[in-house]
Amino acid sequence: MPEPTPVPMSATLAADEALARRRRAGERVLSMASGEIGLPVLPALEDRLAAAAGENAYGPVAGSPALRSAAAGYWERRGLAVDPGLVVAGPGSKPLLFALLLAIGGDVIVPVPGWVSYAAQARLAGARSVHVPVLPGQGGVPDPDRLREAVAGARRAGQSPRAVVVTVPDNPTGTIAPATTVRRLARAARELDLVVVSDEIYRDLVHDGSGPAVSPALYAPERTVVTTGLTKSLALGGWRTGVARLPDSGLGRALHTRLTAVASQIWSSPPAPVQTAAAYAFGEPPEVTERIAASRRLHRTVVRAVAARFTAVGATLAPAAAACYLYPDFEPLREHLAEAHGVHGGDGLAALLSERYGVGVLPATAFGEPGRPLRVRAATSRFYGETAEQRTAALEAVAPGTAGPADPLALPWIRESVDRIGEVLADLAGPPVPAPAPRI
Amino acid sequence: MPEPTPVPMSATLAADEALARRRRAGERVLSMASGEIGLPVLPALEDRLAAAAGENAYGPVAGSPALRSAAAGYWERRGLAVDPGLVVAGPGSKPLLFALLLAIGGDVIVPVPGWVSYAAQARLAGARSVHVPVLPGQGGVPDPDRLREAVAGARRAGQSPRAVVVTVPDNPTGTIAPATTVRRLARAARELDLVVVSDEIYRDLVHDGSGPAVSPALYAPERTVVTTGLTKSLALGGWRTGVARLPDSGLGRALHTRLTAVASQIWSSPPAPVQTAAAYAFGEPPEVTERIAASRRLHRTVVRAVAARFTAVGATLAPAAAACYLYPDFEPLREHLAEAHGVHGGDGLAALLSERYGVGVLPATAFGEPGRPLRVRAATSRFYGETAEQRTAALEAVAPGTAGPADPLALPWIRESVDRIGEVLADLAGPPVPAPAPRI
Repeated sequence: MPEPTPVPMSATLAADEALARRRRAGERVLSMASGEIGLPVLPALEDRLAAAAGENAYGPVAGSPALRSAAAGYWERRGLAVDPGLVVAGPGSKPLLFALLLAIGGDVIVPVPGWVSYAAQARLAGARSVHVPVLPGQGGVPDPDRLREAVAGARRAGQSPRAVVVTVPDNPTGTIAPATTVRRLARAARELDLVVVSDEIYRDLVHDGSGPAVSPALYAPERTVVTTGLTKSLALGGWRTGVARLPDSGLGRALHTRLTAVASQIWSSPPAPVQTAAAYAFGEPPEVTERIAASRRLHRTVVRAVAARFTAVGATLAPAAAACYLYPDFEPLREHLAEAHGVHGGDGLAALLSERYGVGVLPATAFGEPGRPLRVRAATSRFYGETAEQRTAALEAVAPGTAGPADPLALPWIRESVDRIGEVLADLAGPPVPAPAPRI
Repeated sequence: MPEPTPVPMSATLAADEALARRRRAGERVLSMASGEIGLPVLPALEDRLAAAAGENAYGPVAGSPALRSAAAGYWERRGLAVDPGLVVAGPGSKPLLFALLLAIGGDVIVPVPGWVSYAAQARLAGARSVHVPVLPGQGGVPDPDRLREAVAGARRAGQSPRAVVVTVPDNPTGTIAPATTVRRLARAARELDLVVVSDEIYRDLVHDGSGPAVSPALYAPERTVVTTGLTKSLALGGWRTGVARLPDSGLGRALHTRLTAVASQIWSSPPAPVQTAAAYAFGEPPEVTERIAASRRLHRTVVRAVAARFTAVGATLAPAAAACYLYPDFEPLREHLAEAHGVHGGDGLAALLSERYGVGVLPATAFGEPGRPLRVRAATSRFYGETAEQRTAALEAVAPGTAGPADPLALPWIRESVDRIGEVLADLAGPPVPAPAPRI
């Protein structure tokens, strides 16, 4: 190991910091680069954290018994019952995913497109990542047939793939792989003797009418690790809390031993006061489930309105099914973007959106896509306002029975952001390229 | 990377969990295995954390501007002024140390004996650790002459040592390397082109009358990274907060880029509410410095009383100079321990203390010592009581001008623990082995 492992800064966090600097410098910016959820802490959770401020003991490496029991209950209510002794809590699901790669060992199959940190974490863990494309509209789950080919090829080449990462529902595409694909993936993983690491952090943000998100733990229970956290469902990214559910099998128990050993050497234990508040949240009392339902409705309303702005200018887009992500493809505008803007790929498109319009998005390359696809990821989770008051108003607009406006899109600051992206896209796509032939 | 990296669970955390289980099962145990500080949260800090419970944004990967400025001020008051832009905060100094190994790359020189996690972290980072002994009574800083030999040997063998870790003041020995040794270490590091990673988490716990602890950053400022946290000085281990100070040099700026990239991929950012409280603590208002001074006096009083119990039975021991650690050597009792107890090394001694007496200590092997030295590490930081009331009373016993007893050793629960270890050691060392010849 003569040189440090070359990893880039997390593309989302880097873009976010750059946009924050520009905003502080007085520039008008529209941040769609990061999926950080711009919503306030639920007051009941704020109270729980405040009440736990005197907790300063490390406690168990795997997390407090209360948090592990609460997380087990959370999974049990989703058909994934688990012994709390097989739950490991960490300071975010991101560190848990990293520690899992170290605990599993070997090389890692990642979906393409896939979350920005999987491949970087694999590099830091000394592993290679093998990129396997997803099926159209089935983001987050590598195509099972291509998975078989890729694993066979990697093994012939002397690599040792041992794990496959899936994201259900998916970031960056905002889509949900159907149960049939998840089942085929699980079967392939079993045949190939791979551990499935299922990142289910968006599970509770499946839009009403979409889904459902089905866990591979249903189909390959002996080999599937599930991770989640409160970063997305309850907007608690800054609290740093996540949990992993290990399989109830010899493999799972061996992984538990290795995962807690790795955790003990890297982070000791998750922050104690946060654990106490997180245990309350995973217990899902009514105010928590109501808040999550409201944020789900809010994401759905806003992300669909923004999706319509992308399709209005000719970008193609799988329907958003969960959370706050869009992954539009500007391929139909390739000629125009090249001629009018000198843009030939997602990187150039993201740079143009940032530099000319102050709109932050991430190019497809950040998600591991090869070549020069004209795809970018846009997140709408920052549209809800800059202040706690605005953000609360956005939530109230989707709460049943409140006196707020019926539609969050009627709130001026949300309206303005949605209109702004519409204007930017119209400017990007226009003046209209003359149609090659009359349409009628 | 065909197999997962074999790392053991942190010896301190593992021993602590095992002792906690035995205590819950009703056994009488005396926990001296872990250096977790059994003292309450300072009320002013508890209030700050509670007030920050609504903070849920990630914020910058390197930590909030307020925390970085406060940490820079902390170092400035210790003669180590630094631009806040070169400070990186993390969820504990442990993850920062791990991320630094990844950011620096190459193999790592560690002191022997040295903290349980340095070598394990090196393994997880894909590096080799090169063990260099410390000089007697100068724990934490590898002997500079042996360092030169070891680096030359490692480079001849094709290894790439790039960093040397030092601990000033030291854990496990509780001693402080003198300035002359630190200066020689710094000079050797410069000649050998090594980054010095100086773990200074015990810096504020140097006993009155001992020290001072001198940072290698004074002698090799261009290449020394300093880490610290609030885990020891303010007993905030469960809060998970630490900071790193990078050198103001080309090397330091390159390391900053790599360290924040690694941090962004492993943990995103430190817990936001904790950052706000930590910023207040690093600002060192009077109640914080008073609390740290009180805990310093408490550690000194109790660790010295316990040290006397070890030397009373014939173990040898460098005088405790900082924090709450003792590293007694039972070599003078080797024959007796072998004959009376079948104990031939530190592992056997620690096992005997645990199994027969319920006393948890860690053997020298946990700190990387080869062979079968009859050394163990004993920490007294759990002697202050089991309840918040007892722990507060222990602090009040050393606070100037309070109405409590003048001596924490007069508190029954502390007295009892000190007496208990005295009885255990007397039993271990006795019945007295007949002297080989009359002494007069």
